[in-house]
Amino acid sequence: MEVQIAVAKVNKYAVSESGDTLEVIERPNGGLSVVLADGQSSGRGAKAISQMVVRKVIGLLAEGVRDGAAARAASDALFTDKQGKVISTLNIASLDLSSGTIVLTRNNPAPVFICRGEQIDCLEEESIPLGTSRNVRPLITELPIEPGLIIVIYTDGLVHAGQRRGQPMDVGATLSALLEEQDPTPQELADTLLSEAVSLDENRPADDISVLVVKVTAWTGDNVRRMSVRLPLEGGWR
Amino acid sequence: MEVQIAVAKVNKYAVSESGDTLEVIERPNGGLSVVLADGQSSGRGAKAISQMVVRKVIGLLAEGVRDGAAARAASDALFTDKQGKVISTLNIASLDLSSGTIVLTRNNPAPVFICRGEQIDCLEEESIPLGTSRNVRPLITELPIEPGLIIVIYTDGLVHAGQRRGQPMDVGATLSALLEEQDPTPQELADTLLSEAVSLDENRPADDISVLVVKVTAWTGDNVRRMSVRLPLEGGWR
Repeated sequence: MEVQIAVAKVNKYAVSESGDTLEVIERPNGGLSVVLADGQSSGRGAKAISQMVVRKVIGLLAEGVRDGAAARAASDALFTDKQGKVISTLNIASLDLSSGTIVLTRNNPAPVFICRGEQIDCLEEESIPLGTSRNVRPLITELPIEPGLIIVIYTDGLVHAGQRRGQPMDVGATLSALLEEQDPTPQELADTLLSEAVSLDENRPADDISVLVVKVTAWTGDNVRRMSVRLPLEGGWR
Repeated sequence: MEVQIAVAKVNKYAVSESGDTLEVIERPNGGLSVVLADGQSSGRGAKAISQMVVRKVIGLLAEGVRDGAAARAASDALFTDKQGKVISTLNIASLDLSSGTIVLTRNNPAPVFICRGEQIDCLEEESIPLGTSRNVRPLITELPIEPGLIIVIYTDGLVHAGQRRGQPMDVGATLSALLEEQDPTPQELADTLLSEAVSLDENRPADDISVLVVKVTAWTGDNVRRMSVRLPLEGGWR
């Protein structure tokens, strides 16, 4: 088997810093975690918040703290710092090789899609962002790592795309159409979802948008781990 | 312009944990840093050392500490902890958008290649790993971000490939041949260097091998940042 992770990320139109922060780290007991936070508002202030949340979470994960506890700790730290005046969403997708599972942690009103073949499930149970109160609980979903599994996670920029024009995006329908095609790569899925959102916003994204896709394939080849990053400089990475 | 980063990484044969650790993080003032450490020996002990070094460095970079200072701090921490008995190499490649440069920090006897068109320069000045003494200095090279620039960084597994059989790898010659081809992508460069090393080791790598390639292209397209990770599960990510 091989786990493939793809990210596509764009800034709000005419804003040089994204309020979304995404980092990938190795887990101390094997596997890796992808951590995605979206700080309230946009620009430099939002960036500082989402970076603080992601740093806190990856610092704890690196020490072996469990994902849910790391999310709660980040929420408490944000609430203590900002007294509930500033909030941040958080998603963690962890490939936990010690348990053989993918663990999804969600503090984000935006849903998560889980696809297996033609079947598409939407995790849309109510979920509260970090920093809103003293007792924020993450929603945890644990799935066995098995070929064919596809997970789609995104920030609210994708949810809000097109709303300005009264044509909101139907993520489930777009995903369903994409999955009918010939075995799309995770990068194709992330890129297509993002480009549809940007086009609904008439190429001027109304918010930062980040799309994260995790796919498990039956592929067996070399034992080489690979990573690639593409960073256009005009848009800035921040 | 676009900056593209590619990594290919393989474990020592029959060892489930790589002593090499590589992480990519966003820099607080824009851009990103790739941090690569290779802990002495192999397996779990080496992994703990390289993870400690990388965590220390990325924690400091996240606070805005300069790369050279972060490398010195990691060296001092390692020396204090292990009294010079355990060492680790370190390379940092930073895309610093505030200065418009790529900053290379090296505490690694393995050289770094810098390519522009047909011209290939080898940075091979003597460089000492972290943790060897109280006063370890990194070598710092700062290059303007400009299209055509290619940087190749690797751990000593690539240097040692084939030595068991008396057929050591000539990284410069391989790179030169590759660059004569039609504009190879950084992933193609990293994959080819790695696969040549693995084949010189008769498909049983004598050491962990990590290859990191940074390429600056003139490409102007969308403003989408992309990342992808491929993790074969048999080999483990660790």
